[in-house]
Amino acid sequence: MRGRDLTGDLMGRLTFTEYFHLLLTGEEPTDDQRFFLDLLLVAIAEHGMMPTNVAARMTLAADPDSLHGAVAAGILGAGPVILGTSELCARLLEQTGASGGDPAAVVREVRASGGKVPGFGHPVHKPFDPRAERILELADARGVSGPHVALARRFADAVVDASGEPLTMNVSMPIAAVLLDLGFPASAVKAVPILARTAGLLAHLAEEQEHPVGFHMARAAEEAVEYER
Amino acid sequence: MRGRDLTGDLMGRLTFTEYFHLLLTGEEPTDDQRFFLDLLLVAIAEHGMMPTNVAARMTLAADPDSLHGAVAAGILGAGPVILGTSELCARLLEQTGASGGDPAAVVREVRASGGKVPGFGHPVHKPFDPRAERILELADARGVSGPHVALARRFADAVVDASGEPLTMNVSMPIAAVLLDLGFPASAVKAVPILARTAGLLAHLAEEQEHPVGFHMARAAEEAVEYER
Amino acid sequence: MRGRDLTGDLMGRLTFTEYFHLLLTGEEPTDDQRFFLDLLLVAIAEHGMMPTNVAARMTLAADPDSLHGAVAAGILGAGPVILGTSELCARLLEQTGASGGDPAAVVREVRASGGKVPGFGHPVHKPFDPRAERILELADARGVSGPHVALARRFADAVVDASGEPLTMNVSMPIAAVLLDLGFPASAVKAVPILARTAGLLAHLAEEQEHPVGFHMARAAEEAVEYER
Amino acid sequence: MRGRDLTGDLMGRLTFTEYFHLLLTGEEPTDDQRFFLDLLLVAIAEHGMMPTNVAARMTLAADPDSLHGAVAAGILGAGPVILGTSELCARLLEQTGASGGDPAAVVREVRASGGKVPGFGHPVHKPFDPRAERILELADARGVSGPHVALARRFADAVVDASGEPLTMNVSMPIAAVLLDLGFPASAVKAVPILARTAGLLAHLAEEQEHPVGFHMARAAEEAVEYER
Repeated sequence: MRGRDLTGDLMGRLTFTEYFHLLLTGEEPTDDQRFFLDLLLVAIAEHGMMPTNVAARMTLAADPDSLHGAVAAGILGAGPVILGTSELCARLLEQTGASGGDPAAVVREVRASGGKVPGFGHPVHKPFDPRAERILELADARGVSGPHVALARRFADAVVDASGEPLTMNVSMPIAAVLLDLGFPASAVKAVPILARTAGLLAHLAEEQEHPVGFHMARAAEEAVEYER
Repeated sequence: MRGRDLTGDLMGRLTFTEYFHLLLTGEEPTDDQRFFLDLLLVAIAEHGMMPTNVAARMTLAADPDSLHGAVAAGILGAGPVILGTSELCARLLEQTGASGGDPAAVVREVRASGGKVPGFGHPVHKPFDPRAERILELADARGVSGPHVALARRFADAVVDASGEPLTMNVSMPIAAVLLDLGFPASAVKAVPILARTAGLLAHLAEEQEHPVGFHMARAAEEAVEYER
Repeated sequence: MRGRDLTGDLMGRLTFTEYFHLLLTGEEPTDDQRFFLDLLLVAIAEHGMMPTNVAARMTLAADPDSLHGAVAAGILGAGPVILGTSELCARLLEQTGASGGDPAAVVREVRASGGKVPGFGHPVHKPFDPRAERILELADARGVSGPHVALARRFADAVVDASGEPLTMNVSMPIAAVLLDLGFPASAVKAVPILARTAGLLAHLAEEQEHPVGFHMARAAEEAVEYER
Repeated sequence: MRGRDLTGDLMGRLTFTEYFHLLLTGEEPTDDQRFFLDLLLVAIAEHGMMPTNVAARMTLAADPDSLHGAVAAGILGAGPVILGTSELCARLLEQTGASGGDPAAVVREVRASGGKVPGFGHPVHKPFDPRAERILELADARGVSGPHVALARRFADAVVDASGEPLTMNVSMPIAAVLLDLGFPASAVKAVPILARTAGLLAHLAEEQEHPVGFHMARAAEEAVEYER
């Protein structure tokens, strides 16, 4: 693995998180990089019965011998609406930072063209997403917060100013900001939520194997639509 | 395309079903092969809000720009429980036919070892699956019914005898029997339900794009499980 | 199915293509709609050993019992680079048509912002894609060519003018133009290449089951990269 | 999360591996459980240009904006041939252990019915798979080796006796044996290679984004088949 000795050196010495960092970036993580990579993976691994978990359980119910097929079906829902905004946040922070742009101006521009600033708004957590707050708190406490975390906070103020109401900074923005301040490239940011969600999916599917609810949920979903028509 | 001229010959002359037959078997279909391939594809393309359609709609809701991702998620549920039994039926018919076995003996053996004979039982259609009946009726009417259809009927009798109650022959068994009697290899049988279901998925997803219900269904599915606990 | 009687009416009367049209649009096709839907599905079902077929074969080699898993893997490659441009072409034609825009101006604008006009360029077919030519020829011959086909041709001229060299109109543009002129909504256009490619994938995978080359291809792919480094 | 406080307790305290254990089993791991879960995840995360990585890279090349789609395509190849044998090994060890069976007799029986004992044989590593050896060595050194590891070794002897030639115990068998000796249920064993491989896939796809080789590999794969015909 990139010139290292897997059995003689890495196995038994590195944690899975450290090895993931090595695979993704080519380097073993510093203490801070390891701490926050673990923190972020833990923060977003499990989201309850979100659509991707429901879809994965139904797929396992329909094809019980293919655990990997059900995992793949669940990962396919990890798109921009549910999970993919970390990468958009990273690109927003990187571009605004590189051009020395003003978050307030960027927010106005995005809203004027009918768009949405990524990383804000949450269907449940209002006005604060406790995971987002906790990540930023720990980033401050360990001295990791840098220019991207500062920029994320300026975006939060600008978004609230522009919309005239409290709008939650969701977990995607601190994930992006902290990873960038730790030296991750923006292109690697989305790998973190995908790995985290795979762990969550595997836990849901292990539970589905023991206590199947996939068909029951599919029926309830079907009835919800029929009653409505 | 297998030595044929796509633009000069095939395009505009062959229907999609005829071309699918050519791709899959290397030969253009006879009239009967074309008629029944169309018939079987139509019979199973659409199943309403079955789990695979629900899972695909949720996936599209979570990643609206990836129609092909949502289709893939839906196809992943086309496993043995929901859709994959046609191939098992084909292998059962082929093996029993080749060995000159007696369906009644095969049914007893399968049941004795705790297994289930594929192609029988249906959660809704009892004691008859109208699609299965219609396929067999047309196969008889057009003189296509051969040894595999006869064997399928003997299996139906044997299954009812062994279980002591009416057990529906579902649509998978006539699909397999008719395709084998028309000369399809058993290994190609599963391609038919997969192509048919892809058409059904695409129709559901077109509707989802116009009238989204994916998140609504996911919430109903979630609540169904929570109420229960 | 949308108020119709599946077993008593549709099965045995409709071809699969006609039923696909009914599922997708809610209406049975006219003769022209059926003819061109068949034509377009045939035109793009099979592309030889393109990356999606190769990926699907490798997946089947790794998990031989899951035909539907391998199909899903292949469909996941039906993105904008390989197959998804039909929908982009449809949106381009629809927007330009609705706004009464001038193709030459649109092409200049797209190129000025560093973009590419969808539907032009092909790695093999130069300066003409015979499938694209044949589709337009038949659309003219059957009197189906309308404003969207006319617009497609104006885009072809504008693209060549702007680039100063012959640039092939590939098959995606006529697919979009003809479907729009036949009354298909732009949102349904992508369903056609996805269904067509599923048929092609199923044919490749049937061949892979009989004559496996998936692992062999994977080794060749691996060696191609290693030699290069 | 199973009654625990995510932001106030788990985030920042648990590593991702510890949290994965908690999600999967409902309990935080002991030191040994954590050590070996990390060890096993590291041992199998990365396999070089195996077919699943090649298929995922080609899928990303064809649809560059869908990282999660490419990951799903790669996971779909995690079937029994490449990755799924850990679960088969776990069931073999569990059943043989529960019934007090004799590995030599089980091996004879499996071979007599034309089957293969899972967990043995490797295309590259002969006669020893260094990762398998290292896992067993560490399990012995830390006093974790129990009845399932002992049984795995008896199977290794029995397989060599029965085949009359050295046959490598591959990494799947020690993974299964150690997880069972640490108290994991057999049904959870397959989750470990799937999570590990997802990390490997994400690393390959990050590299593919920076230095694309997907289309180049697809061409080489295609040529390998054409030259041969």
